[in-house]
Amino acid sequence: MTDGQDLGITESKEYATGEWYAEVVQKAGLADYAPMGGFIVTRPRGYAIWERIQDYLDGWFKDTGVQNAYFPLFIPESYLEREKDVVEGFDPEVAWVTHGGYDELEERLAVRPTSESIIAPFMAQWVRSHRDLPLRLNQWCSVVRWEATETKPFFRTKEFLWQEGHTAHATQEEAWAEAMTRLDQYERVYEDVLALPVLRGRKPEHDKFPGAHTTTTVEALMPDGKTVQGATSHYLGTSFAEAFDLTYADIDEEERTAHTTSWGLSWRAMGALIMTHSDDQGLVLPPTLAPTQVVIVPIWQEENRAKIIEYAEAVESTLTDAGLRVDLDDRENRNPGFKYNEWELKGVPLRVEVGPDEVEDREVTLVHRPDGERATVDRDGVAPTTEDHLDTVFAKLYADAEETLEGEIREAGSREEILGTIGKHGGYVKAGWCGEAACEEPVKEAIAAEIVMVPEDRDAEPVHEECAVCGNDAEETAYFAKSY
Amino acid sequence: MTDGQDLGITESKEYATGEWYAEVVQKAGLADYAPMGGFIVTRPRGYAIWERIQDYLDGWFKDTGVQNAYFPLFIPESYLEREKDVVEGFDPEVAWVTHGGYDELEERLAVRPTSESIIAPFMAQWVRSHRDLPLRLNQWCSVVRWEATETKPFFRTKEFLWQEGHTAHATQEEAWAEAMTRLDQYERVYEDVLALPVLRGRKPEHDKFPGAHTTTTVEALMPDGKTVQGATSHYLGTSFAEAFDLTYADIDEEERTAHTTSWGLSWRAMGALIMTHSDDQGLVLPPTLAPTQVVIVPIWQEENRAKIIEYAEAVESTLTDAGLRVDLDDRENRNPGFKYNEWELKGVPLRVEVGPDEVEDREVTLVHRPDGERATVDRDGVAPTTEDHLDTVFAKLYADAEETLEGEIREAGSREEILGTIGKHGGYVKAGWCGEAACEEPVKEAIAAEIVMVPEDRDAEPVHEECAVCGNDAEETAYFAKSY
Repeated sequence: MTDGQDLGITESKEYATGEWYAEVVQKAGLADYAPMGGFIVTRPRGYAIWERIQDYLDGWFKDTGVQNAYFPLFIPESYLEREKDVVEGFDPEVAWVTHGGYDELEERLAVRPTSESIIAPFMAQWVRSHRDLPLRLNQWCSVVRWEATETKPFFRTKEFLWQEGHTAHATQEEAWAEAMTRLDQYERVYEDVLALPVLRGRKPEHDKFPGAHTTTTVEALMPDGKTVQGATSHYLGTSFAEAFDLTYADIDEEERTAHTTSWGLSWRAMGALIMTHSDDQGLVLPPTLAPTQVVIVPIWQEENRAKIIEYAEAVESTLTDAGLRVDLDDRENRNPGFKYNEWELKGVPLRVEVGPDEVEDREVTLVHRPDGERATVDRDGVAPTTEDHLDTVFAKLYADAEETLEGEIREAGSREEILGTIGKHGGYVKAGWCGEAACEEPVKEAIAAEIVMVPEDRDAEPVHEECAVCGNDAEETAYFAKSY
Repeated sequence: MTDGQDLGITESKEYATGEWYAEVVQKAGLADYAPMGGFIVTRPRGYAIWERIQDYLDGWFKDTGVQNAYFPLFIPESYLEREKDVVEGFDPEVAWVTHGGYDELEERLAVRPTSESIIAPFMAQWVRSHRDLPLRLNQWCSVVRWEATETKPFFRTKEFLWQEGHTAHATQEEAWAEAMTRLDQYERVYEDVLALPVLRGRKPEHDKFPGAHTTTTVEALMPDGKTVQGATSHYLGTSFAEAFDLTYADIDEEERTAHTTSWGLSWRAMGALIMTHSDDQGLVLPPTLAPTQVVIVPIWQEENRAKIIEYAEAVESTLTDAGLRVDLDDRENRNPGFKYNEWELKGVPLRVEVGPDEVEDREVTLVHRPDGERATVDRDGVAPTTEDHLDTVFAKLYADAEETLEGEIREAGSREEILGTIGKHGGYVKAGWCGEAACEEPVKEAIAAEIVMVPEDRDAEPVHEECAVCGNDAEETAYFAKSY
C-alpha cells in the first residue's frame, strides 16, 4: 500500500452498496478474493475482529457449561444419509472428496457442511445414563457449502468460519432452554459487542434447519433494507437422536431418547458489522472489536517535533497502561491529513490529536470516528476520559442502528401492500399469516422477499386477523423481508 | 462411564507401549477413533490441552510480530504445481475434492496439506516495497495428509490440527533469524510448558521440507527409545518467492526477491506429552497444561460429613481465588479410593485429601500424581504451598524426561555399531557422517532407523573423523534413531 491515490473509498454506500462494501472490505485490509470463486482470504485486520468475537462468545459458552472439542473435517456419505432431512437439505451443497493420494476412495467423504451427522453418533457412544446429561459440545472450525451464488466476503462464501454447538438433554424442556440460552448469547454478542440491535424469532416451518423441530434466529437489518440471518439456534427434537441411537437410561433405568440442539454463529456477523456501521470514508468499528481502539496522531513542525513526540508517547503510555489498544502514528513521511484518512479507512474508533496547542495547555483533542465530533480534554485523567468517549462512540453506533431498525418495520394488510411496501422502502413488513408456505410464494416470486421470521412469542395475537395473502384466519405474524 | 471395572489402564507402558498409549488416550477421555481410518475425534479433555498449548504459543507469536490470518481450506491443483518440490513431496498424500454439489469441478482442489502454495501468492500481492517487510502470518487450522500408516492418535492421523507460520523478509539473514526465533519458541514450549527436554538440530538434506533451503527441528525422545519430530522451522530460501513472484523494491527502488520461512507445530506435541509422562495408572499432565490442576477429595463418615465438606469447600475457594484450576469431588456415590483412581487416570497433577485429621489439625494432605509423594501441610498459606508443590511436580516430570534423554545418547564408530546400539538400546546414536544420503540407507534398511538430525552448530567438529558407514571424511555428526 505505497500509493496514496488508491487508498480511499470511491464507491457510495447509499447508491452502490454492494460495490462499496466490497471496496471497504478490501481497502481496509480485511479480506481478499481467493483464486477459486466463492472463497476468500481473511487478512490479519479481518481475522483480528473474528478472534475478538470468538473471545467473547467462547467465554460465555464456557461460563454456561459448554466444552470445546474437535470432530473430523470429513463425514462419510453413509453417515450423512442417516438423517433423511439432512441429506436432502445439504446434498446439493456438499463438496466431495473422492481421492486420497493416487487412490479412489471406497466411500466418498463430504467436507462437513455442518457436523450433526458426525457428532451425534459420538454423543450416542458417550451418553449412557441420565448422569451423562446434559452434554454440551462446541467446535470452532470452517465448513463448506457449495452454493452457486455470487461471492460476498463474510456474507456468502463457499467456505466460512463459524462455531457449531451441539448438545444433548434428557427432556424437551431442558433442550428448549438450552436453545434459548444460546439465542440469548447471540443476541447479546450482536447488541453488546457488535453494536447491532436484532429481532428475535423463529423461522417458518418451511425454512427450518433440515431435521430441526424449531429453528430460532436473530435477524439484523442492513442499511440497504435487507435482513441478515445473524445466527441460528435449533431445537432438534429427537430426530437426530433417533437416527443415531442417542439414548440414555433414566433414573428408573428406562431407556429414553435424548433431545438435542445445535446452534451456530458464523463470520457473517462480521459482514453485518462492516455493512452497518461503515461509511464512505471506510470501515467503522465499535471499540469492543477494534484491533486498534485509539490512534494518536502528533502534529509537529520541525522546531517542536521532539517535544510533541515526547508528549504523545506519554499519552500513549497512559492509555496503554489503562488497558486500551493504542497506536502512535509517528511516521515521518506522512502528513497528519494522510494519517487521518488512513485510520478512518481502517476503522479506528477514536483519534487523539496532539499538536502545539495541546502540549501547551496540557490537553488532547479527541475525534470520534463515526461523526467527526471533536472534544479537547485535560491531559490529567485522559485514560478515563478516553474510555468514556469510546463508550460514547459505541452508543452512537448502536443508537444509529436502532433508529434505522425501528423506522424500518412496517405493516401490510394485503399481498399488494407487502409487495409495494418492501418494493418502496425495503425493511421488514409484518403481516397476518395463515402459516402456509404457499402464501409466501407469490411474494417470493414477485420481489424475492420471504418470511424471514415469526416473532418469538408464539401466543401473541397476530398483527391482523387475516392472512394478508390468502385471507384465511391468521395464525401468527410473519415478518417479510429481502434477505442476504 | 458408569462402570468401574473398565475404568483403569490394563496395558503396560513398558511391555506394550503402543497398546498402553491407545488405552490412555481413550480412557482418559482425550480422543476416540473416527469411523474413517486415520481420523480421530478430539474430546473435551484432549481439546482443552490443545487450547492451552495454543494460548502459550499464540501469545509468544503475537509478542514477536506475528499476525493471525486465515487462508482457504482448498488449494487449486495448478497452484500446488507451481513449486515443483512441493508437488513431488505432497502429491502422493493429497486428498482431492472433485465435486461440488452434483457437478464435477473444472479443476481439482487439494485439501491443504500445508499452505505455502496458497499463502505465497497473496504475500506477493501484499508486498510491494521493503517497507512492507517483514510480513509475518500464522494460521491455526487443520491439514490433511493421506498417509497409509496405522492411526496413532495425535502422532499419526490423516487430519491433524496445527499452526503454520509463513513469513517474508528482505534478506537471508533476517529470514534465518526468523526461523531461529520460531525454533526457540518451539523449544520453549516443549521445555517450559510440556516439561519435555528436546534436542535442536537440522534435518539432513535428503529429509528437508519439500522446497526448503534448511529444515530445523526439535526432537523429543519417547520412553520406547524412538524420537519424535516435535516441530519444524524452515528457512525456505527464495524458492517459493521465485515460484510465486514474491519480490519487493528495495531502498534504491531495485526489485529483489524476498526470502521466506515457514514453521509449524502440530498436535503431535500432545502425543509426545502423553507418551512421555503418563504411566500404568493413566494420564500424567504437567500443571501448565492440566485442565484441572488440583482435585480435592474429602474423606468423610456420615457423622462428620458436613464439617469436612465445609472445610474442603473453603480450601477450594482459597485455591481458586489464587488462580488455580480446582475441582472438588464431593460425589456421594463414590468412595475416596475410586475417586483417587479416576483422577489419577485423568492426569490431575496434585490431589488434596481432606479428612477428619486434616480438619482437626487445620492441615491438608497433598499427593503428587507422578510418584505418589505425600505431604501434610498447614491450612494457613495453603495457596502458595500448593503452587510450590505444583512447581515441584513440573520439575519432577522434567527431570525424569531429562535423565532418560541424557542416558539415551550414545556414540558409534561403525555401521555395525550403529545397528547394534540402536537395536539393543534404542535412543540416539551419534556418528560421524560424510553427508551422503546413501550412507543412511543400510541403517534404514536393516533396522528402520534414520538420521533424524544433525546438531545445530554447523561448525562443530564431527564426533569422529570418519563417516561411520563409508569411512570417508566425516563432514558432520549425524544422530541416528528410530522415529515416530
